[in-house]
Amino acid sequence: MSSDALKAASYIDASRLLESIETLACFGARDDGGVDRPALSPIDIDARRFLVNRAVELGCTVRTDACANLFFRRPSVEDLPPVMTGSHVDTQPTGGKLDGCYGVLAAFECVAALNDAGIRTRRPLEVVAWTNEEGTRFQPGAMGSSAFVDPALIERYGQAKDSDGISLDSALAAHREAFPSLETRVAETAAHAFIELHIEQGPLLELANVPLGVVKGIQGVRWYAVRCRGVAAHAGTTPMHARHDAMTLAVCIRAEIAAFAYQLGGNDTRITFGRWSVLPNSINTIASEVTFTIDFRHPNPSVLHSFDTQLANCLARHAVTSEALFIHPPVDFAPAVIQRVADACDALDAPSLSITSGAFHDAMYLAKHCPSAMLFVPSRGGISHNPLEATDDDHLVLGARALAHCLVHLCNEAP
Amino acid sequence: MSSDALKAASYIDASRLLESIETLACFGARDDGGVDRPALSPIDIDARRFLVNRAVELGCTVRTDACANLFFRRPSVEDLPPVMTGSHVDTQPTGGKLDGCYGVLAAFECVAALNDAGIRTRRPLEVVAWTNEEGTRFQPGAMGSSAFVDPALIERYGQAKDSDGISLDSALAAHREAFPSLETRVAETAAHAFIELHIEQGPLLELANVPLGVVKGIQGVRWYAVRCRGVAAHAGTTPMHARHDAMTLAVCIRAEIAAFAYQLGGNDTRITFGRWSVLPNSINTIASEVTFTIDFRHPNPSVLHSFDTQLANCLARHAVTSEALFIHPPVDFAPAVIQRVADACDALDAPSLSITSGAFHDAMYLAKHCPSAMLFVPSRGGISHNPLEATDDDHLVLGARALAHCLVHLCNEAP
Repeated sequence: MSSDALKAASYIDASRLLESIETLACFGARDDGGVDRPALSPIDIDARRFLVNRAVELGCTVRTDACANLFFRRPSVEDLPPVMTGSHVDTQPTGGKLDGCYGVLAAFECVAALNDAGIRTRRPLEVVAWTNEEGTRFQPGAMGSSAFVDPALIERYGQAKDSDGISLDSALAAHREAFPSLETRVAETAAHAFIELHIEQGPLLELANVPLGVVKGIQGVRWYAVRCRGVAAHAGTTPMHARHDAMTLAVCIRAEIAAFAYQLGGNDTRITFGRWSVLPNSINTIASEVTFTIDFRHPNPSVLHSFDTQLANCLARHAVTSEALFIHPPVDFAPAVIQRVADACDALDAPSLSITSGAFHDAMYLAKHCPSAMLFVPSRGGISHNPLEATDDDHLVLGARALAHCLVHLCNEAP
Repeated sequence: MSSDALKAASYIDASRLLESIETLACFGARDDGGVDRPALSPIDIDARRFLVNRAVELGCTVRTDACANLFFRRPSVEDLPPVMTGSHVDTQPTGGKLDGCYGVLAAFECVAALNDAGIRTRRPLEVVAWTNEEGTRFQPGAMGSSAFVDPALIERYGQAKDSDGISLDSALAAHREAFPSLETRVAETAAHAFIELHIEQGPLLELANVPLGVVKGIQGVRWYAVRCRGVAAHAGTTPMHARHDAMTLAVCIRAEIAAFAYQLGGNDTRITFGRWSVLPNSINTIASEVTFTIDFRHPNPSVLHSFDTQLANCLARHAVTSEALFIHPPVDFAPAVIQRVADACDALDAPSLSITSGAFHDAMYLAKHCPSAMLFVPSRGGISHNPLEATDDDHLVLGARALAHCLVHLCNEAP
C-alpha cells in the first residue's frame, strides 16, 4: 500500500497538470490574465463540458445532482463508500486561475497518475466539482457542497437570483439541458473521507517558507451589519454640540469593537470592517445614517461567543441596531484524515505547517458529511481573488503528489 | 426718511407674502410638501415666468444677463446706482419652500409695499433672482452671483454638465428662447448696496429665541478630499500584522484632523467628514482605498490658514494625498450696511442677534461687488435643504418688514 501511494505520487505528470490549469483558465479568460467564470453561466457550462470529457477519457463515470455538482468516479475493486476529493471551478469576477480549479484539476491528475501507474484501489476515488462556491452570482456561497450535505437547502437556494434576475432554479434547468444524458447521483452511504487541495489564499506558508500546509480546521466567522443613525444637518450652520453625526458614532463604535476583538482573540484575531454605506454621503451634510459590516473570525468557539456577547453590549450601550448576515462555527477536521495528509508530506520529504484555514471552503460543509481535511499550497504574496493569484509550479506539482499519496492510502483503508 | 422706512415696513402685507411663497412652491412641488426645482429646468423656467409677470404687474423693468440672472428694477427719482436685494429660486432635489425663494419673494413684497405706500426713492430698488445657487444641477454653486461679479467666469461655467450631459450653455440657450423679449442688463456702475434676506439654515436664532439675525459675515471654508491607499486582501486569511487597511488609516487620520481642528478653532469650529467612498467595499475584503471629504469652516482667516498647514503636515506624515475641492476665505460684510440692518431691527422693536453665516450665500460673492450684508430669520429645528424646512409666519413677515425698512433707507442714501 505504502509503495502504491509513493508510486502514485511519482506518476503525477507536472506538464499535464500545469497545462490543464492553463486550458481550464481559457474558459472566461480575462485580458489581464485572470478568469471571470460565474457559476452555471454559459462559460461555466463550457468549462464543465471540458471536465466531463476529460473524466470520460480517464475512465470515470460522471454523475450530477440537484445542485449541479459534478461527480467523476474512478472504479474500485470493492463496493465501498468512496473517497471524495475536489473543489470548485466557478471564480470571482476578477479571479485567478487557481482558486478552486487547482483542487479539481490536481484531483484529475491523481486519477490519471493512478491509471498510468496501474494502481487499483479498494474504494472508488470520486472527484467532485462543487457548484457556486464563490457566492458571487448567487448568494450564499458554497451552495453545491452545503446542499450535498443537507439536500433540504436546495428549495431555498432555488429562489436565489443573480443581478440579472435569473433564479438559481433557471440556471440549474439550463445545466440539465446542457447535460441531458448525465446520470443523477442518488443519496448513498456517506463517503469514507473528503480531502480538498487548495491554494492558501493567505501569506502564512510563504512567510514560513514552507511548501505544504496541513489544514487542521477552518476558523469560525461572524458577519454583522451595524446601522448607526444620526440626523442630517448643514455642515456649515450646525454647531458641533448640536450635531448627531452618524459617522462620528460609527467610527467610535468601530474602535470599541476592534479593541475588544483584539483583547478577546489575541494573535488569532481577524477583524475587518470592509463595507460602508453613508447617507446622504454629501460633502456639506452631516451623515444621517452609516451602516458598516463586521467580519470577525477566530478558531476558538468560546472567543466567538464572547465576541457576540460584547458586541451586543456595545451596540445596546450606543442604542444601535445590527443584523447578523452570516455565522459559522469553527470547523475541526478529522484527526485521522489530517494524519493521512501529514503522513503524505512526510513520505515526500516535504516540509509542512499545521495551519488553520482563514477562508471558507467546500470542506467546511463536507466536514459534516464525512471525515474531512484540507491540504494547502502557498499563495504568492498571499494574494487570491485576483488575476495576480499565483503559486510556484513546484508547489503546485508537490501539492498534487501529496494529494495522490494520501488518496491512495485513504482509498485502501478497510471499512 | 425714517418715517418712509417705517411706513414701508407697515405696508408689508402678511397674507400676500405668505401666499406668494405657497404659489412659487407649486413649481416643482413634491408629494412630501417639499420642492424640487433644478436650476434652469423647465419647471424653473415656469417659476421664472411667474416672477417676470409679477414684476411687470408691480411696475418693474425686467432684464437678464449672460448667466440668466433676472433683474427686476423699480424706477427711482434720480439716476443713481441701485440698491439690490434678492436671492435664488432654484432648490435642492429634496428642498423646502423657503431657502432662496423667501429672499426673492420678500423683496417683491417690499416693492409692492413701497408702491402701496406711494413711496418714491432716490435710488432704484433692484430685486434679483440669481441662477443656480444650490449647485445641484451644475457645479459649482452660486454661478449666477459669482459670474455677475466676475463675468469672465461664464466661459468656464458654460462647459459644466448636469447628470444628463446637458451643458450650462445649452440650458442658458433654452432660457433665452423662453424669454426672447427680455433686455440684457449691461455692465454698469457697481450697485450702491446688496442685502440678502434668508432663512438661517441653522439653529442659533431658535436656540437664542430671537426672531432676526444681523449677519456680520460668512465663515471661510475648506473642502478637501483625502485619499488613503491600502492593499486589498482576504479578511479571513490575512493576519492583522500583515494588513494595510485603507479604512484603518482613514479613521486614524480623521481622528487626528478632528483633534487639531477643535484645538485651532475652539467653539467656532465646524468640521464635517461627510462623503466616504470605500473600495472594494466588500464584507470580506480589506479596503484597498478610502476617500473621504473634509468640510472645515471658521470665521477667522488665521485659523483657516493654520488648519491648511496642519492638514498638510498630517497627510504628509501618513504619506496620503489630498485634493482641494473648494476654498473660500471668510467674508466680512460692510459695516455701514450691517448698521442699516441692525437699525431696522431696532426701529421695529425686534430683538436681533449678531451672527456669522455658517452657510454660503449669493451675498458671499456680491460682497466683492458692493457693500453687502444679510438678514436672517430663524429656521425651525435648524433644518433646511429638506421638505421639513419651516419658519414661523410671524418671523417671515417680520423679516420682510425689516428688509423694507433698511431698503428704503439705503435707497435714499446720498451718492
